[in-house]
Parts: sequence; C-alpha cells; structure tokens
Amino acid sequence: MTLMEPGVCRVDVVRGQLVGATSHYVKTLADLEGLYEDAVAFDALKGAMSDEVVYEVTDYKPSANPGDMIMGVTRVRPGKVGREYFLTRGHIHANANRPEMYYGESGCGLMLLESPEGEIRAVEIGPRTLCYVPPYWIHRSVNTGSAQLVMTFAYPADAGQDYAIIEEAGGMKSRVVDDGKGGWMLVDNAGYRGRSARRVERVYASAL
Amino acid sequence: MTLMEPGVCRVDVVRGQLVGATSHYVKTLADLEGLYEDAVAFDALKGAMSDEVVYEVTDYKPSANPGDMIMGVTRVRPGKVGREYFLTRGHIHANANRPEMYYGESGCGLMLLESPEGEIRAVEIGPRTLCYVPPYWIHRSVNTGSAQLVMTFAYPADAGQDYAIIEEAGGMKSRVVDDGKGGWMLVDNAGYRGRSARRVERVYASAL
Repeated sequence: MTLMEPGVCRVDVVRGQLVGATSHYVKTLADLEGLYEDAVAFDALKGAMSDEVVYEVTDYKPSANPGDMIMGVTRVRPGKVGREYFLTRGHIHANANRPEMYYGESGCGLMLLESPEGEIRAVEIGPRTLCYVPPYWIHRSVNTGSAQLVMTFAYPADAGQDYAIIEEAGGMKSRVVDDGKGGWMLVDNAGYRGRSARRVERVYASAL
Repeated sequence: MTLMEPGVCRVDVVRGQLVGATSHYVKTLADLEGLYEDAVAFDALKGAMSDEVVYEVTDYKPSANPGDMIMGVTRVRPGKVGREYFLTRGHIHANANRPEMYYGESGCGLMLLESPEGEIRAVEIGPRTLCYVPPYWIHRSVNTGSAQLVMTFAYPADAGQDYAIIEEAGGMKSRVVDDGKGGWMLVDNAGYRGRSARRVERVYASAL
C-alpha cells in the first residue's frame, strides 16, 4: 500500500505562521463588516486600515478523510473597534460533535465559546495554554492583548466549519470589550437574537 | 443538552508535563527491557538507574468517543544504552488509519516511523517543529540530544495503541545510534524479523 509521507512543518511564532502549510487565508477588516457593535468606529477604522490583515490562518491538511487531522496556526492582530477587541469570525463544526485544540504560542487572548442554547464561556489563553474546545461549542478567538495573538490548533479533518450559525443569531451572546482598567470584560451583545429550538436540534443532529 | 466543559491545561516545558492532565504514566529503564541492542550495557545501566524515569506521558482525555481528541505532553530523558539513544516503546494505532501530531517544545530528537512493510523514515524534531504522523505508520520518539526532549501531541480519541506490533517484529527495522561525530545515524536492527504479509494485511484491515 502507498502511504502518506510524514509531514514536517515549523511554527514561526514571530510571523505567526505555519511554515510548510498547505493552505492559507487572511481576513482584512473589510471582510469583517457586521461583526462589531460600533458601526461608526468600524467605518472610521475601515477607512484607515481596510486592506490590512486582522487575522490569518496557515494550515496543514493531509486529507479530509474521517479520522484524519488538520493542524495549523492562527494569528490575530492586536486592536479594537471602539471598545471591542479584534476577533475571528468564529464557527461551530459542521459535524458539530467534533472538538478542537488551541494552543497559545504568543500574546494573550480568549477563546470565547457559546453553546447552541446560548451559554457563554471565556477561556484565557497565553503562551503554553492548551485549550480544549469540546464538541457542540461555537467558538471564536479574541485578542485582548497589545501584541499579536498566535495559536497552534488541531482538529479532526472531517469537522468542517459552519460560520452562518453566528451570523444567523446576530452574533455571539457576549462581546469582549476593554474594561477601561487594563483588562477585558464580557458585555451583552444587544443585537443577539439567539436561535430557535429547531435550530438547536439541528446542531445536535449534525453529528457524525 | 449537557455539554462537556471547555478544558484548560498548561504545558510546563521545564517539567515536561501537561498541568491539568487527566492521566499520567511513566516508564523506568526496568520497564524497557528488551528494547535496546546492547544487553550488557542495558543491564549495567539498569543496575545504576533502574527506578529512574526514562519517559513520561501526561495527557488530557476528554472522552474515548469517535471524533474526539486526546492531547498531552511526552518527556524523554536524555541518555544512551551503549551507543543507542533513549526512546519510547512506540506503537501503531490499534485503529491504524488514525494519525498523530507531535510538536517540539524543547530538546531535540527524532520521530522514527516504520510502515507495516518495513519502510523507515526519521523526522528531526526541535522546538516548534510540527510533525504529522500519517495513518498506518508505526512510530516512536527518540531523544538524540543532551537535554530532555519535550513534545506536545494530539491524536484522535478512537485511535488506540498497539504496542505488540514492534515486539512481534523484533523491534523496529532501524536503530538510532550515536555516530561518534556529535550526531545520530540509523543502523540496521540485527534482531529485526519484519512481519508476514498476513500481519501487514491485518494492519490495513484495522481501520475504522
């Protein structure tokens, strides 16, 4: 039988990239329209840094076979839109019973998690923090620091991503904002609509 | 639905352990009888350091559910038995189409891989090297440095480990030894018997 060859990559912590990655994408501020609470601050910042990368993902995808794994690095730039910290779009796994591992390399931030029913958890991530995102949790990364947040991640190759689940609900239930005292705090997202019992059921049904 | 709570652990690179792990085991030199080529050197060393830990694994196992993941840290002490570097017992996954990720934290060493048919690969691992062990490869870690080798790892929760595959074949096809010039080299394992076509077939059949 012809086997896959071993993969060798390197995490470049300073650049916030996986060297040897097989795929790569970036999100600029312009790509993140509608994610932040302060539309006026967003428009002003978009004018100033529309094309600049807010976050970047480099990953190594050996295959999409069930049982295989995908590994990569995510880098989130430091910054805020108004009082709200830069964040990733976030997702739930399309096959929602798939977990994910995030591992802090540099900078500091949060993994913000929301259950389908709207329970919120925030896990602080710094260098060498290993965060396990269990099955069925919506999750996004937030950079609460003044340096870039770099994390290595791994997840099952058959997980998939459903980004719509956050958009449909008007965002996640909580926003992560500057508390004005050098830290972060969670505040309610005024635009949050939550999801119907039927939509929640659909999440639990989307398990392999 | 009651969901699992997010997991938060920390990799202690100096101690070579996952703080917050749910399970833990160690292997002393006495546990590794029969793994090394030089039985005389082994016996002498065993007398001197029988109870000392050669390697240690701390891991976080949220569940054994298909699609879930296990994460952990392995630490291999530096040292040699004769000319042969300290190594882990090694395994193939019991469900052999499951891969594994190893990620270098400190020290330097090798991931030694062998296909069921007896092809050998050696991947050098140092800090920030991410090594992907593809499905169907037998693998073991070797510390070729003078400091402890620490790696973070992740693999599918339904992978399982088959340790017997190495023992049955008289070890792995190659041994990793000191080349006498400050580096390592592979040499043939004189005791290697390989495996039958039937045993190879059995490996490929043990896929989920």
